[in-house]
Amino acid sequence: MRVKGWARTVRDSKQVVFIELNDGSCFASLQVVVNPELANYEQLRKLTTGSAVEVVGEVIASPAAGQRVELKATEVTVIGLADSTFPLQKKRHSFEFLREIAHLRARTNTFGAVFRVRSALAQAVHEFFQQRGFVYVHTPIITGSDAEGAGEMFRVTTLDVNKPPRTPEGAVDWHEDFFAHSSFLTVSGQLNGEAFALGLSDIYTFGPTFRAENSNTSRHAAEFWMIEPEMAWYDLDDDATLAEAFVKHLMRTALERCADDLAFFNKQIDPGLVARLQHVLESSFERMTYTEAVRRLESSGQKFEFPVHWGANLQAEHERYLTETVVGRPVFVTDYPTEIKAFYMRRNDDGKTVAAMDLLVPKIGELIGGSQREERLDVLTHAIRSMGLNPEHYGWYLDTRRFGTAPHAGFGLGFERLVMYVTGMENIRDVIPFPRTPRNCEF
Amino acid sequence: MRVKGWARTVRDSKQVVFIELNDGSCFASLQVVVNPELANYEQLRKLTTGSAVEVVGEVIASPAAGQRVELKATEVTVIGLADSTFPLQKKRHSFEFLREIAHLRARTNTFGAVFRVRSALAQAVHEFFQQRGFVYVHTPIITGSDAEGAGEMFRVTTLDVNKPPRTPEGAVDWHEDFFAHSSFLTVSGQLNGEAFALGLSDIYTFGPTFRAENSNTSRHAAEFWMIEPEMAWYDLDDDATLAEAFVKHLMRTALERCADDLAFFNKQIDPGLVARLQHVLESSFERMTYTEAVRRLESSGQKFEFPVHWGANLQAEHERYLTETVVGRPVFVTDYPTEIKAFYMRRNDDGKTVAAMDLLVPKIGELIGGSQREERLDVLTHAIRSMGLNPEHYGWYLDTRRFGTAPHAGFGLGFERLVMYVTGMENIRDVIPFPRTPRNCEF
Repeated sequence: MRVKGWARTVRDSKQVVFIELNDGSCFASLQVVVNPELANYEQLRKLTTGSAVEVVGEVIASPAAGQRVELKATEVTVIGLADSTFPLQKKRHSFEFLREIAHLRARTNTFGAVFRVRSALAQAVHEFFQQRGFVYVHTPIITGSDAEGAGEMFRVTTLDVNKPPRTPEGAVDWHEDFFAHSSFLTVSGQLNGEAFALGLSDIYTFGPTFRAENSNTSRHAAEFWMIEPEMAWYDLDDDATLAEAFVKHLMRTALERCADDLAFFNKQIDPGLVARLQHVLESSFERMTYTEAVRRLESSGQKFEFPVHWGANLQAEHERYLTETVVGRPVFVTDYPTEIKAFYMRRNDDGKTVAAMDLLVPKIGELIGGSQREERLDVLTHAIRSMGLNPEHYGWYLDTRRFGTAPHAGFGLGFERLVMYVTGMENIRDVIPFPRTPRNCEF
Repeated sequence: MRVKGWARTVRDSKQVVFIELNDGSCFASLQVVVNPELANYEQLRKLTTGSAVEVVGEVIASPAAGQRVELKATEVTVIGLADSTFPLQKKRHSFEFLREIAHLRARTNTFGAVFRVRSALAQAVHEFFQQRGFVYVHTPIITGSDAEGAGEMFRVTTLDVNKPPRTPEGAVDWHEDFFAHSSFLTVSGQLNGEAFALGLSDIYTFGPTFRAENSNTSRHAAEFWMIEPEMAWYDLDDDATLAEAFVKHLMRTALERCADDLAFFNKQIDPGLVARLQHVLESSFERMTYTEAVRRLESSGQKFEFPVHWGANLQAEHERYLTETVVGRPVFVTDYPTEIKAFYMRRNDDGKTVAAMDLLVPKIGELIGGSQREERLDVLTHAIRSMGLNPEHYGWYLDTRRFGTAPHAGFGLGFERLVMYVTGMENIRDVIPFPRTPRNCEF
């Protein structure tokens, strides 16, 4: 057989050279055995780590532990030598160091595995929705709307910032900008997705979203991918049922299709990972109102950094305690206080809560957030006003409630959060090929 | 059975009301037959176009032409009335008009079909590559590199454009910007994709790209999606072979899975569409060098608006003449003059051409552009310099040639161009859910 790949390690043993060859297609490397008979044996003894080589040889049962076969080379061609300054020499490298060489880190065990799992999960997302007849919608990345209040936004412009055109009053004249007004990078495709769901019934988005928050944490990136399904005719219960099936489909796919990569993460990165994913897959997810959740937290006797009381946001410590200790499996917390949720969530009849849901899972807390949307034109208009927003800025969105409105619901899943959950990687910078964070936009 | 959808039309006939109900899941509407026995019959006689309704009834063979079955209603519930100002009353609407109500147009026959086809094609893209073991890579949207010269770029910033921070010399101080230097929206993920291919072997991207070109044509949008596979160990021939299989997979998927939608386009939008797609699917694609193509064009006797000569870019008229008249089927034109192609394309031994390819197809000309990449460090560095660019700006990119370089190739397909080709729609604004063009960033 003929194989091509990069030498992960080269070991010059007595009368034989071992090349550990990997082409990135799977976790395992292939051990290539080079005997002195080969014409370029002396050259190969000095082969540098990271070099690209092509090998012709015979697959034979391997006497070595940990591998069934090895490749007995009959011909080895060096395709591209690695300069001896190649930074990925055989030793442990810190993730911090590897971030500085993001263009090379896919050639390590860890990052090859991360990006294979990321790809498999992305495909699982599409499969899940397409099999159910959902229409994949590319909602816009550049948006003229800055009114969602979901976070700080990046401005998109072609104006000369050094000398922008000005109005007679001296303000920047945004009418001169590319889109003839201020424009930004999207923080969510939801409102656009709703418009399509109220016509195509079941849709989903899967695209990049942006936050210009200057927070340098292991969980925040300025650019990340989000999945946002939106379903007409769904109420909150239907929404949760779909989200549960979705999460289980993702877990099942990872466990089945990425078994080798996950075995690695389970061993080297996050002991207990595979059992945790398996547990999520096999659990029936609990459902509990926010009111009940607060009651259970209050009566738990547990000391929290942030005190719990009805009306307050649940903090990560509360969320984890709920899913890990109170219920011991994934739980949907539903029907949150109106005041702490977004204007578009459907008002419940109790006059104080909305039909929102968060899915909490062991180890990280919130994985998914969703809601039934307010489909009643008058209630929605009132909600927009009561949040201090101007209904006139939501003209097209309100149109969808004016012309054949229907109950609908949806949820959002941060894709990087999912990849972190499935791999056990703890820094968002390590699950994005080329991460963008404050003061960092290399490559 | 129970169905939910929107009334496309309501017809009050003698003693019976017909509601044409559609939920966006497929092209065909379901005819609902409402008899006077129903308690709310008088209400339903006045049901407005666009209203959302839920119907319980019995599926019966239909006496009407063009449909096998209809739904005899036993219960009809009006879920959301459409205001009588609903713009999509039953009549022909121009595409121009419908663009102004992009939030509603998915509820028309044409745009429901366009966006279902778009979604099916997106899924076909993923299937094709995932089945072959390609890793889907999310290359960055925000980039610090403005040096590719592939087109004008949008700036991304969080600076206050009205009063940006200044250096002592009075220039805008980009060190104060979010990423601590100038940043832009990407025009291509290729260079990042190459870095991943030289580690994972076979990868593809599928994400949004941007051009800040102020050109208001039917083919240009400021925001569009692009697919860019990149394969280590591939030469130009392998690249073309993969591209041919890819295009055929896309045609086959559209013809098989979107038969009803395509039948509509074939009838109403672009007569000959289905035959054209079928022809592409069944053809063996020709391969021809640029030099040969120029010779054939010169000797054709055909009059062109732009004269043909070796060294010039082929114009759309030349491309279409080649594929439609000279060859009569899709053709890869390969090995273009170095001067008219990008720096990263592999120099051929003849000293005057590069290993580039364009796939030309009947009706539109270029559908795909690709190349084998220059994998030789010295040749690539020289090429960068000879294009007037600074190799120091390509440090990480050149690293991939320094540390185990390997032959590799890839291509790019503009996704909207594909959707236009498969639907016959002639304006890019009509295949994007919410298009972004100069002076237009609504919704």
